[in-house]
Order: sequence, then structure tokens, then C-alpha cells
Amino acid sequence: MIYFQCDYVEGCHPKILDKLNQTNMEQTPGYGTDKYSESARKKIQDACGIPEAQVHFLVGGTQTNLTVIASLLRPWQGVLSPETGHINCHETGAIEASGHKVLSLPSQDGTITGEQVRQYCLEHFGSEIREHTIQPGMVYISYPTENGTLYTKAQLSELKEACREYSLPLFIDGARLGYGLTSPDSDLTLQDVAQLSDIFYIGGTKCGALFGEAVVIPNPNLVQDFRYMIKQRGGMLAKGRLLGLQFDTLFTDGLYFEICKKAVRQALAIREAFVEKKIPLYGASRTNQQFVVLTSQQMEKLGEKYAYEVWGPDGDGRTIVRFCTSWATRDEDVSALIEDIQRLSV
Amino acid sequence: MIYFQCDYVEGCHPKILDKLNQTNMEQTPGYGTDKYSESARKKIQDACGIPEAQVHFLVGGTQTNLTVIASLLRPWQGVLSPETGHINCHETGAIEASGHKVLSLPSQDGTITGEQVRQYCLEHFGSEIREHTIQPGMVYISYPTENGTLYTKAQLSELKEACREYSLPLFIDGARLGYGLTSPDSDLTLQDVAQLSDIFYIGGTKCGALFGEAVVIPNPNLVQDFRYMIKQRGGMLAKGRLLGLQFDTLFTDGLYFEICKKAVRQALAIREAFVEKKIPLYGASRTNQQFVVLTSQQMEKLGEKYAYEVWGPDGDGRTIVRFCTSWATRDEDVSALIEDIQRLSV
Amino acid sequence: MIYFQCDYVEGCHPKILDKLNQTNMEQTPGYGTDKYSESARKKIQDACGIPEAQVHFLVGGTQTNLTVIASLLRPWQGVLSPETGHINCHETGAIEASGHKVLSLPSQDGTITGEQVRQYCLEHFGSEIREHTIQPGMVYISYPTENGTLYTKAQLSELKEACREYSLPLFIDGARLGYGLTSPDSDLTLQDVAQLSDIFYIGGTKCGALFGEAVVIPNPNLVQDFRYMIKQRGGMLAKGRLLGLQFDTLFTDGLYFEICKKAVRQALAIREAFVEKKIPLYGASRTNQQFVVLTSQQMEKLGEKYAYEVWGPDGDGRTIVRFCTSWATRDEDVSALIEDIQRLSV
Amino acid sequence: MIYFQCDYVEGCHPKILDKLNQTNMEQTPGYGTDKYSESARKKIQDACGIPEAQVHFLVGGTQTNLTVIASLLRPWQGVLSPETGHINCHETGAIEASGHKVLSLPSQDGTITGEQVRQYCLEHFGSEIREHTIQPGMVYISYPTENGTLYTKAQLSELKEACREYSLPLFIDGARLGYGLTSPDSDLTLQDVAQLSDIFYIGGTKCGALFGEAVVIPNPNLVQDFRYMIKQRGGMLAKGRLLGLQFDTLFTDGLYFEICKKAVRQALAIREAFVEKKIPLYGASRTNQQFVVLTSQQMEKLGEKYAYEVWGPDGDGRTIVRFCTSWATRDEDVSALIEDIQRLSV
Repeated sequence: MIYFQCDYVEGCHPKILDKLNQTNMEQTPGYGTDKYSESARKKIQDACGIPEAQVHFLVGGTQTNLTVIASLLRPWQGVLSPETGHINCHETGAIEASGHKVLSLPSQDGTITGEQVRQYCLEHFGSEIREHTIQPGMVYISYPTENGTLYTKAQLSELKEACREYSLPLFIDGARLGYGLTSPDSDLTLQDVAQLSDIFYIGGTKCGALFGEAVVIPNPNLVQDFRYMIKQRGGMLAKGRLLGLQFDTLFTDGLYFEICKKAVRQALAIREAFVEKKIPLYGASRTNQQFVVLTSQQMEKLGEKYAYEVWGPDGDGRTIVRFCTSWATRDEDVSALIEDIQRLSV
Repeated sequence: MIYFQCDYVEGCHPKILDKLNQTNMEQTPGYGTDKYSESARKKIQDACGIPEAQVHFLVGGTQTNLTVIASLLRPWQGVLSPETGHINCHETGAIEASGHKVLSLPSQDGTITGEQVRQYCLEHFGSEIREHTIQPGMVYISYPTENGTLYTKAQLSELKEACREYSLPLFIDGARLGYGLTSPDSDLTLQDVAQLSDIFYIGGTKCGALFGEAVVIPNPNLVQDFRYMIKQRGGMLAKGRLLGLQFDTLFTDGLYFEICKKAVRQALAIREAFVEKKIPLYGASRTNQQFVVLTSQQMEKLGEKYAYEVWGPDGDGRTIVRFCTSWATRDEDVSALIEDIQRLSV
Repeated sequence: MIYFQCDYVEGCHPKILDKLNQTNMEQTPGYGTDKYSESARKKIQDACGIPEAQVHFLVGGTQTNLTVIASLLRPWQGVLSPETGHINCHETGAIEASGHKVLSLPSQDGTITGEQVRQYCLEHFGSEIREHTIQPGMVYISYPTENGTLYTKAQLSELKEACREYSLPLFIDGARLGYGLTSPDSDLTLQDVAQLSDIFYIGGTKCGALFGEAVVIPNPNLVQDFRYMIKQRGGMLAKGRLLGLQFDTLFTDGLYFEICKKAVRQALAIREAFVEKKIPLYGASRTNQQFVVLTSQQMEKLGEKYAYEVWGPDGDGRTIVRFCTSWATRDEDVSALIEDIQRLSV
Repeated sequence: MIYFQCDYVEGCHPKILDKLNQTNMEQTPGYGTDKYSESARKKIQDACGIPEAQVHFLVGGTQTNLTVIASLLRPWQGVLSPETGHINCHETGAIEASGHKVLSLPSQDGTITGEQVRQYCLEHFGSEIREHTIQPGMVYISYPTENGTLYTKAQLSELKEACREYSLPLFIDGARLGYGLTSPDSDLTLQDVAQLSDIFYIGGTKCGALFGEAVVIPNPNLVQDFRYMIKQRGGMLAKGRLLGLQFDTLFTDGLYFEICKKAVRQALAIREAFVEKKIPLYGASRTNQQFVVLTSQQMEKLGEKYAYEVWGPDGDGRTIVRFCTSWATRDEDVSALIEDIQRLSV
């Protein structure tokens, strides 16, 4: 069985493994105060073009989301999110467990607009009984979105402007940031992301690392005492160097972007095969996740050799499924899949 | 500089690293549903002598403590703990952040007694205004304790009996469990721990793994839906196999106990050197942590070559410091330290 | 200005005030352990036909909702609620602040069905990744609903049956229970409510009391230690007798139902006036709240003499407004309003 | 039986009851936006000498404490409190339920010093591993303390200065503020309290009202959005005028202080009787609570006619008990008690 189910089925990029092997018996202080974490922080600050940015390393995505959001909100505030946002759908209520409601905004393609934020705030702050409802306190989006779609620079700038008007920090979940920034559809750079958000993270788990997410706070005054929160919420790794050396490797010689770009190229080849076969796409993803609408016969046929993720019924008798590539996907597996797509009955 | 500061300054045992290398490009499903996690669960169930026990893998200790405790308590309950307990002192209020007070019991050596638990419960449940105070809902201890001391089987049985009388689950933090069970002072086995507690964990981070703690729930009916809680609190590793294969390796051919035993042997040699030098010990630890009371001159001298942890003033002008060994400590480093202890002025 | 804005603009029923006057200087023990609370508990148990039911008195509705819900749910669970539910819309995230998500179900008229609950549970418990989403742990409805609509006995029985199938306690917010049970459309009695729910409350604040809600737990084993939760969440009134004597009075000689019935009669007369005038109703309320769709001219005209509540735009240029009667509404004010409705331009 | 057990065994001062009677059928808007609340706020601002102070009315003490503290702290912070503080002992973990630890400081007589605060902060902020422990975020005291003792103006100024040095808001629980300020031992005025604290409340429940506590925030910029929190935590009374008119009455013509002064006078007469009888006092209270150490024979004798509160064993075979007076205590009951004290065997 060849897995296209998700982007976390293998271990880590070989260069990271090499680094783990080379450094295994070195002795370093704990909790992220080691030289590898220091070096990784420096490289990420440089890549973002903001030397004074805070950079913190956490283990996983849900942990990062809950730690960031609980750090920023006051008890009577909630976080605006697309209804499809990961925090709203797939984190077992982690945000609510920290005391805050996810205030969901309708979204067709996974994105939300500045206008939606403005409208929500206008209604809330204009209400005479606003104290009986949750105050919007920040905005959460992901880049790329859960659906693999992307904000343009213009869209993101407009969203940021709306946030600025209402003093709402804008938080970008970048669990798959590398796959977004290296899409041919993206007109954003890492530096743009750092300029257009108040806090974001660079995903490692799905982009070449064994695990790990790098939180960047461009304006270092935004959050005080973030390390207390990391510790309190269980995200402070004793052997913090494991996070440091992974990100240090990923941000050496552009490795992070190189391996993500390869995955996107592979995903687009798979997409092209579906398009040629006139099998309908679901959404307009041009990143490493491709959503297509299959008949049950097609699912069965592809399911003989490939693992994919069932996303849900399309409402019309067929099923939406997801094929993911990653830094680890082999070209020969992509070729085999493409050939088998070409052989499908339609 | 040679580190005796703590037991998490190196990476992981070479056998684990081998396993990581061998399996790196294998494809496995996520979130602990892989074959390595399955195998590790089986081995731990066998080692505990309880095939039906629930076994779950989490990343770190604070995360494990907060997830376990928040799973067991009702909102109006707190957790009884020795005043020196890790949850009471060194987790940035992680338990309180989940809504529960740590109810601390006085402790000279890091242990508490069944009698203390009985007394607390008697006072609470006997009070006419008990509803104005927090109800004790479970008991937390660590084995070995923060001070490196150990419960005897008789003491633990007595504590368990008191817990049973008041229907309080007994939770054992085993971050250093291996170093406790392999101490010459221990009269407990892993199977005893499984019999005499309601939930406990086998520490990996400090005992040979890169990271990871294995939670064991001997009576599988004690906690329902524990995986929801792991996910919600950010402890469900996407690449769950990393936890599985580490514990699978540690529980193959007795590796876990073998490497911990070595560390204890080394610690006792260091202890012996201090004793011969008539440098006072602080507490009676016979595990991998040794606490001694040094003059500032002795601290300075040893500090030239060795990193140790300052525990605090002894109240008499000298300082309590901690020397730790671990699975990774080299015999030559121990020998060097012993020689330098022998050369100290007293 | 005559207030029809809501049902809490006056003080309390004169019989309650008499009782307050008569007992003011009596000395009683605190926190609900007094004889008036005891007597009120007994009368409510009798009225519900369940002598063993737990009965507790709290101060207000939001407090009662959060205390009940946080008592019943485990941390990884949420509460199913109609999207229009008070806990979902008008309590400033009180439920989320206690760590739990409100899982909203679509609702046209304020009610939800057993089928909706079944469907939600089927999808949740049937999912392979259910642990990544919030587990439904109870169901919240109100009777009457926010929109003034009512469940029939058949509908409520069906909902209860669905809850039973999935072991979800059914909680009925009865802030306006009296106005529901005395509607000519209601085929339910207080005893039915006690039979068909797992926990509910009898609203006092809006039904004749100065303040106060009486929580009834028909099966006394459902919740342990509820008084701890009342105290912890700030709902345990020091002078608890104030709650006791109010409910004691309300449940003497059927006063509670008598005064609510009067308010419903008045509301239906107002409703009839609007209907005769062919002014459209919004929803089918036959309780003390009447929702009508007014032009801005009509709003202005009525607004000269009467306070009403603006509910929101109807999407068609007109505005939905609410007129409320209560135990305190005077017949002469109702007559005046009806006359002025009759004089409106349409 | 005559109750000296606590200061909340009667209803309310007759002038308040008159006001309730006079205004019962008036119609007012809800949630504290009525004219009585407005008037009460104005009178309290005047009495504090700070026209711009925020003033809010809540129902009870535990509710007020949890709402204030959760409004001020960030998630990684705790509240410093004397070990005997009400929030640490008698609120069923209400503060912890909001996510924050009570950081208790040793106290003999119920007070803490600026030096203790400084020392705690010095150790915390000076620690290399401060992120592993809870950050002190505010200071809670009560005036008078649980033991009935009082801070002098010098002591309070010194405590405030320490708080200022570490940017810790100082919160004074004034559940019995009136009984403190009218003690002959007090050298503080209400205006002093407003100057020397960052937030405090004027207790109504124990000082003449049916219920109610008035929170004063001298610097109105300290807390934003406090009304959201009141609503979220269940403290926003629908018929808010009930709170307003009680405080409006209490702060008309100095009634609040007049009735408290009377209670203190009575308590001191009782105290004098015990002193003359050479029955030992427990602590140095010169407020409305008097603590004495009785033999079991004395307890039995007085218990025949009087209810008092058992505080605990004195460690020497006798028992500490509390006698309370209040605004409602009758002189004839005090006289009777004094006579019976004089008749006790010693």
C-alpha cells in the first residue's frame, strides 16, 4: 500500500536524521536554551527579515494553536475563524477547553475576508447588549487553508487592515506553510507573512521534521511571558535541542522550501492527471493537498494500491477524497498513481 | 564541561536511534495507531502483567500530568500531593490552569502516608461546611520522589488502602520510574506498581528516550475516552510511531531496566565518594539523583569541570546541590568526578 | 413610558414582598439550610411528583446554566443546543469559559428534534477520527424556547428517547417555564417536564420573584456534589432563605401558575390585536412573548408610549420586535396598547 | 436560640426594605442600567472621593472575588494571598476553577506585609527557571481580615508600595469593610482604601443589605470590559436595580457606617466581658467578630441559649469559637450574652 493519505506518514528528512545521529551524545542544557535552538532562531529571524522577532519551538499543531490563542485572548474574548478552521473542527475543543469560544465565520473555500471581520466587529461593538455576547479578540486563519486554498497578498493585506482597525491580532496557522509559499499560485513570501500577521507558525511536522512548529512573533512586544505559557500547556520539550536542530537544518540552504516545492510539483502532476481524465476537482487547491470527487468504483480501484483520505460525500452520490504529497513522496509512486488514474473508468 | 546537572542532556539510547534510522522512510498511519505503538503497548502490558491495561503514549511529563489529572477529577475536586510534588512546584500551574487546585500535604522527604490522606479526608468529609472547600478527588505521588526517595511496598500498599477507602484514584508520576525500580533500596517491581496504583506512567524522556511517557491504566474501566483528552490537551503526536518505537525498543530484552540500573550504580558510586569525604548528604536518595551539601569553595572547585544543579540554600551557609546520572552517563566521567571529590578541601 | 420590553422590569409579586417584610428580622442559618428553603424544596418535589428529587436554588439564569452544564460534562464533551439557545447567544461565552463548546444544531423555530440528536451522535461516534472532535455529552433546550415556541409532549418524548439512546442527559432551561406550561398550546405539565428531562429549572426571575431559579434533578443520583459546584461558581447565596421564601410563596396555592397564566392571557390578547390588524407575526409563540414585524413608522408610533425590544431586521425592510407581558403587567396597560395597535397605519 | 454565629442571619436594614416596598412596581431597565444603580454609583464615587472610579454591583462575595481576579490575571499568573485568605480557604477552589493558583503567604494574624510580597517577587523573577513556576500577578487581602484584624494605614501603604514596585494590582476584599473602617482601631477612611488599593469592594451582604457587593476600581483604566466578565461569570442580576437601590440607601446619610459602627460597639462590649472574665481571646480583633477560647463546659453552657461558630481546636484541649455581631444585632441580646458570660465558670 502506498500512502497518499496525509503528509505525516514517514519520519523526517534524511539531513535531519543525520543531524540527530551526529549530535546524539552531545550534552546540552534543556528547554530550548541550547545552541541549536539559538541557531535555528537566528536563521528564522533572518529568513523572516525581522531580527528582533520572538521565535519559539513547540511540539505539535494543536498544542501551538491553543498556547498561542490562550496567550492572546482575555477571558471574555473569542477567536474569529473560518468555519472550516482546524481549531473549529479537528482539535477536540482545545480552544474551548482553554475558556474561549471559536467564533466561526462562513467560508466557501476556507478563507475569510476583511469585510467579514469588519462586519462582525461592527455588529458586536455597535450592539447595546454586547456585554451579553463574546467579544471578538483575535483572528485565526491558516495558510494554506484546510482546503489547500491560498490568500493572495492583496486579500491578506485587506484582512490585516480590518484586524488593525479593531485591534485584533491576526494569527496564521502555518502547519503547511511551506506547501503554501512554494505553490505556483502564491504571491507571498515568508517575509510577507511576517509583515502581514501578528503571530504565525512555520510547520515542521508536515514539512520535513519528525515533529515541531516554530512560532514567530514579529513584534516582540505583542506577547509577554510566552515561555510560561509553553511550559504550562505542556509544550516545553525537556530536550529542546531536538526542535532546534530540526529547524536549524530546515533553514539551512533553503531546505525547507526546496522539499516543499518538490511536493507541490508532485501534487500538481496528480491533479493534472485527474483533470485530463475529467474527474472533477473539489476546490481549487494548488498546494500539496488535492481534493477530487470519485465514484465508488474509482475509489475501490485506486484503493487497491493507494491509501487516500475520505473527506466526505459530495451530496450527489460520489465522494470527496484527498490525496496528499509531502517532502517524502517518491517520484516513482507519483508516476504509478498517475498511470492508475489514467486507467480509471469514468 | 561535563554535565551532571540533570538526566536529559543527551539524545537517546543508541538502540533507539538505530530504530529511528531503520524505519525512517516507512509509511505508517498517524496518532498512535501504527504497528510500533501497538507492539509497544503489548510489551508494556506484558511487563506489567495486566494484558487488559490501557497504555497511551504522550510526549512529556507536564503534559502527561495535566492530561491524567484533568481526566480524573470533577470540577469541584482537587488533587492531594506532597508539597514537594512536581505538579505543585514546577509546572507553572498547569493543574490549576485545568481548573483544579493542588492540595498539598506536608512532606519531609518527598513521600506522603496513607494516614495523611485519611486524616485529610476525614476532616473534609466530616466538615459541615465541606461544600465551601475543595473536595479531595485523587492522590498524586511520584516514584521516586523529587528528592530521590522511595516508597517501600508496605508504605505504598498502605497509601493505596487509604485511597481505596475514600475512592480516590492513586496516580504515580514515574518520570524517573526506571531509576526507582532499579535502586538497591527498592522492594517494588513494575508489576507491583501496576497493582498498587490506579494510573501511572513509565518515564521515557529521562530514561533513554528522546522524549515520551507511557501512561498505564491497569483497570481499563477507570478512564473513558482518554484519547480525546490527549488530543484536546495537545499531546497526540501526529507521527505517533515515534513514541511507539521508542518504547518498543526500551521494552525489548529489558533495555529500560538495564540502562537505568547502570545509572543508579554510577550515582551510588558518586554518593559513596561524598560519604567517604564526610560531605553531608541531603536526604536519603539511593536513586540516580544525589543531593549533597557543599561549601561555596567546594561548589566553585567542582564547578570548574562539572555542571550540577543548585537546589537551594541549606539554611546554614552552605548550598544543596544535585548530581544526576542517567542512562547516558559515561563511566570515565563518573571516575573523574569521584577523583575530584576526593581532592576537595573539607 | 410603559414597558413591554421584557419580563423583568418590576420587582416581585406582592405576596413575596409580604413574606420578605414579615420575616425580615428572623434569624436563620445560611446557604439554603433554613426552614424556608426546606419548605420550598418540599413543595417543588410535591408539585413535580418526585419526592426524592434534588432541588437547589440559584440566583440567576446564566449562573444556573453554567453550573448545571459544568457539573454534567467531562472535559472532552460539549453540549448540544439549538443555534438560538440562550447559552449559545446571550451568555458571553459562559459555557466556553467553563471549558466546553456549545455544539449548535440548526433550528427554525427554536426547537430541535430527537432525529437531529441521533444524527449528530451517529456521525460523531461512527467517525474514525472522533477523538479529534468534541464528544456530545448532553442536550440543552429551553421551554418555552427563545422564540416563545413550545415542544409538544410527543416531541419532547421523542427527544428524550434519542438522548436516552446515547446516554445524554437532557437539560431544560425553564427561565420562563411558567409561561410555557400555562400556554393554551401546551400539552405538558410540570410533572411531565420532570419525567421527560434529566435536569431542569423553574424560573423565578421572570415569573414573579425578585430573582432566583430552582434547579430540579428528578433522579437524585444523576449529579453528586452539586452544592460544591453552586458554591464554586458563586451561586450560593449567603442569605439563602431569600430564595427559599420566594419559591415557597410561589408554590403555595398555585401562585406560580396563576400569575404566569394571566401574563399569557394578556400576551395573546396583544397578539390577537396584531393579527386583526394584519400585522405579520414572527414565529408562532403562544406564550408571554410576542414577536411581530413592524414598519419603521409603526415602531415610531408605538415607541412613543411603549418600550419594546428590537429583535433584528426581518430582511425585508421591516423590523422584528418583541412585546413581553409578565406576572406584573397591568390590564389597563394591555388595553391601552391594544387600542394603539388598532389605531396603527398599515 | 439567639444567633451570634455570623453576620448574615437576618434580612436587611429596615430602610432598605422600605425602599423595596416603595419601588416594587416601578418599571426599570435591567442589568444595572437603571436610575437607582446610577445614583448608587454616584454616591459611592463621592464617598470614595474619586468621581471617575468605576463602580459595579455584584450579588455575592465568592462571585465578586472570582470575577475580579479572573479579570486581572493572565493565564500564567497567580494571586498572592495570606494563607488564611477567604479565596484560599472557603471558596471551593473558585479561583483555581478560573485557571489560577492562589499563592499563599504565611500569616499569623491574617495580614501580610510588603516585605513578604517583595521577597516572593524577588525570588520568582530572579530565578533562572521562573517559567517553570507561576508568576505572581496580583495581591489579594481582606480588610478586615478573616481573623478580624486590621492593617494600619502605614502597613497598607507599605504593601501598596511593594505592589507598585512589581506592577501587581492590589485587591482588597471588603466583605466586612464597614466593620473594619468603624473600628476604634482603624486609622483608615474609605477614601484611604480607594487611594491605597487598585480594586476593592464594599460588602453589602454582611453590612445591612439583603445581598450585594459594590466593586470599586479607582483608576478606571485598570480593567476594561468588566461588565462582560460580570455577565460571563453569572453575576449580572437581571433586576439590577435591586443592587442599586440597596447601595443607594446604604450610602444615603452615612447609613452604612452608622449601622456598622453600632455592631462594632456591641462586639467590643462582648469582648470586654470575656476579658473581664479572663477567658482568653484568640487574636486581636477589634471589629464585629470576636474569637475566644472556651472550655467544653463553657461552650455547652453558652450553647444553651446562643449560636456561635466553632473555629477549631486551640491545640490545648479547648476550642476557638467566634461570636459575631451585625447591623441587626439587638442590644438586649448583647446584654443577655454579657450576663451569661459573667456567670460562666472559669
